[in-house]
Amino acid sequence: MKASELNPHRQPDTPLYMQLYQRYRDAISAGRLRPGERVPSIRTLASELHVARGTVEMAWQMLVSEGYLVTEGAAGTRVSPHMATLPGAAHPGQKPGNTDGLPYQMHQMGNPLPFQPGLPAFDAFPRKIWARLSGQTLRRVEATMMNYPDPAGYAPLREAIATYLGISRGIRCAPEQVFITIGYQGALELLCRTVLRAGDRGWYENPGYFPGREVLQQMGMTLTPVPVDKEGLQVSIGQQMAPDARFAVVTPSHQSPTGVALSLPRRLALLAWANQKDAWIIEDDYDSEFRYHGHPLPALKSLDHEQRVLYTGTFSKVLFPGLRLAYLVVPRALQQTFHEAVNRWPGPGSVLPQAMVAAFMQQGHFARHLRKMRQLYAVRRGYLVEALERMAGSQLHIQPQAGGIQVLALLNQHQCDKTLAAAAQAAGLGIRALSEWDATSHQHNGLLMGFTNFASAPDAQAAVKRLSALWVP
Amino acid sequence: MKASELNPHRQPDTPLYMQLYQRYRDAISAGRLRPGERVPSIRTLASELHVARGTVEMAWQMLVSEGYLVTEGAAGTRVSPHMATLPGAAHPGQKPGNTDGLPYQMHQMGNPLPFQPGLPAFDAFPRKIWARLSGQTLRRVEATMMNYPDPAGYAPLREAIATYLGISRGIRCAPEQVFITIGYQGALELLCRTVLRAGDRGWYENPGYFPGREVLQQMGMTLTPVPVDKEGLQVSIGQQMAPDARFAVVTPSHQSPTGVALSLPRRLALLAWANQKDAWIIEDDYDSEFRYHGHPLPALKSLDHEQRVLYTGTFSKVLFPGLRLAYLVVPRALQQTFHEAVNRWPGPGSVLPQAMVAAFMQQGHFARHLRKMRQLYAVRRGYLVEALERMAGSQLHIQPQAGGIQVLALLNQHQCDKTLAAAAQAAGLGIRALSEWDATSHQHNGLLMGFTNFASAPDAQAAVKRLSALWVP
Repeated sequence: MKASELNPHRQPDTPLYMQLYQRYRDAISAGRLRPGERVPSIRTLASELHVARGTVEMAWQMLVSEGYLVTEGAAGTRVSPHMATLPGAAHPGQKPGNTDGLPYQMHQMGNPLPFQPGLPAFDAFPRKIWARLSGQTLRRVEATMMNYPDPAGYAPLREAIATYLGISRGIRCAPEQVFITIGYQGALELLCRTVLRAGDRGWYENPGYFPGREVLQQMGMTLTPVPVDKEGLQVSIGQQMAPDARFAVVTPSHQSPTGVALSLPRRLALLAWANQKDAWIIEDDYDSEFRYHGHPLPALKSLDHEQRVLYTGTFSKVLFPGLRLAYLVVPRALQQTFHEAVNRWPGPGSVLPQAMVAAFMQQGHFARHLRKMRQLYAVRRGYLVEALERMAGSQLHIQPQAGGIQVLALLNQHQCDKTLAAAAQAAGLGIRALSEWDATSHQHNGLLMGFTNFASAPDAQAAVKRLSALWVP
Repeated sequence: MKASELNPHRQPDTPLYMQLYQRYRDAISAGRLRPGERVPSIRTLASELHVARGTVEMAWQMLVSEGYLVTEGAAGTRVSPHMATLPGAAHPGQKPGNTDGLPYQMHQMGNPLPFQPGLPAFDAFPRKIWARLSGQTLRRVEATMMNYPDPAGYAPLREAIATYLGISRGIRCAPEQVFITIGYQGALELLCRTVLRAGDRGWYENPGYFPGREVLQQMGMTLTPVPVDKEGLQVSIGQQMAPDARFAVVTPSHQSPTGVALSLPRRLALLAWANQKDAWIIEDDYDSEFRYHGHPLPALKSLDHEQRVLYTGTFSKVLFPGLRLAYLVVPRALQQTFHEAVNRWPGPGSVLPQAMVAAFMQQGHFARHLRKMRQLYAVRRGYLVEALERMAGSQLHIQPQAGGIQVLALLNQHQCDKTLAAAAQAAGLGIRALSEWDATSHQHNGLLMGFTNFASAPDAQAAVKRLSALWVP
């Protein structure tokens, strides 16, 4: 491929580095550039195309981070030799993955990136307490820890969760109704092995948490995207679109990703629909613990007199995601069904992290940590919102939210969120595009920005400055 | 139900307690005894039926342990009030589960029972080293541990496994080819999400590890039970029964449960078949580390020049099952397919136990522990074999085995292994029936007995004495 074929100025609305990135990606995918083939140096290509070196550099970075190119130091840059073995490598436009951590996947590994959403504050985790507990807990390698664990989860953790939910979320449940899972995705998988059947139709919030959507679809569910407005899921539209759906997935405390709360009339309408249709409501209460104005809303589950709600919570936001621990609370009448299912499948993993979290909760550290984080996150949210308003107020419109651990800002029409988020990710920022959450017509155009790891106002300002460099002029 | 209806002497070949157990189980399942209903006391029933109190007691114990009855101290014994909510409670003969740990499931939780197979020696685990490592490892709650982990597994653990397999099992692989899973069942699940498709036919050893069989069948696989003889899987019979199978699952080091090794001619025949048919071989190398006579056989994978073998190993037998950590080694050409798959599913769980095991391996404790256990298990195997030969030699025939962590003994025809194992389990012994492993005609009649937790010869003798009390005279 000759540099002249790239025609970098043909699409005036797309930034040059994006055009370069797309052309090279397509050329590699289509096999026009072969595995192992050398690509021009940044300096050479910039000079040939009459573009800035930084433009080529950013495109190269994106291609390297997505596994299309490999850099070999002084030996230059080549098309990845592994491209040949990639399934579907010959289909243009298909995204291949690199071996560790795909950039288009939801979750970044390792150090948190500036703006990375969905994370707790890593610097504020009570390391000393955790280390002390690890001594107390893991030193005792008792038979109950060594033998095959209960696939429903470690009993003391299930007890601690039942107690916590009663006090903090208004949910009355016995420990036997609590099932530990590998993250929220594990909870969805378990639901698909119990109350849901392949082919079942369900309502899914739109925009909505896409990794959850993917798990349900992979398990054979058919999802109807039901729009969300300022009161949350539009139940009446769901009833028009798919009146006979067998289930609905909702995030009533802070809708993911818009952050709105499901209003009380909508909650009652949703429950009435589920009762009438014998449908299941899957309540994802993923970050209800963080609310900065007014009282936290009790869980939808607390209104569930007919036992139609299956409730899920996660430790990813309140402790840390590396634990991979979430939980599912099921109605009493389904307890036995779930016990039989968990006995037939791999289960929630090692008992060690479960024992750590149980000890952390039993000794009162969990409630204390939540209180501290609620205060801290209100302050850190302020750092980001202030920096955005001052330095980027003309480009975006911050959405009001009473809680949660990310800020949603809508973009002006001439900025494309996907392009911007891809550029941000290539530049080492953890911003996500709102339209990724959209299963339909991509009418949403905004950015999701985490703030929990901005330790100071200058921290947030520095990150916003890096973001501002990426605006289309 | 009146005691006289029980007719306990109608089936002369079935022990009285078994008859009692079956009658009550069927009566409860069919709803003839209702949830909450009181059953006679042991004393009363024994007197009415003219049987020994011990006979009623054993039947009651079995019914309690399976969740049909609940004892309420002085208030007596009742039909479980939860029976009403059990799905299928009205189908006679169906096994219900109790809430924690089903007695008919493969794995017992908590303290190891005498004879419980598939466990390492709990008393010989290096607790002090483990505690020290927990301090070193978990004290560092670093970003790499806190953030979303690599769903392929913790990188240092994958490296340590690749190194270990190269040295100990003759398998050359890069860390990128190693995927951490939640136990062996997690590895099978991952295979069903990558190289296998619902509806695929595969060869499965018969007798063979039934929990694995169940996972594969649940994932939609069709299994052809291929008989095992003294050289392991009968490849030529597999070729007759299902020449076009897409995969074969084998345990070449010590066949599970017979303990025989797959002979070299059979290994070569199996590989030739897979190469010719483009079929996959799933090698389960679950306890290859323990061999007491002669040199350990290298893994089948080490002969796999055409990259048809997917290799699995587990830490359940060499460290402890509570870790729920196993691994899968995939051919280089499939690496990318597996990386894409693990990104879409819940993954191997928390990074904490993975980091612990990685540190344990890196610091040389793993190799040392294996060496020690190999010596210890040879001694403990001796305790059991000697006690069995001396105290029960006329009832069973111990099968010669060069390794593994359980003893297989075939029974005389007038002893039924399932009846005996059920009685043993009710009496608190962890023995398993060979016929459970049999997917076909139940031509196998034997007992599987673990020995790793017999700390002394008298220990083993005491357990064998308890077993001997259960023989049908």
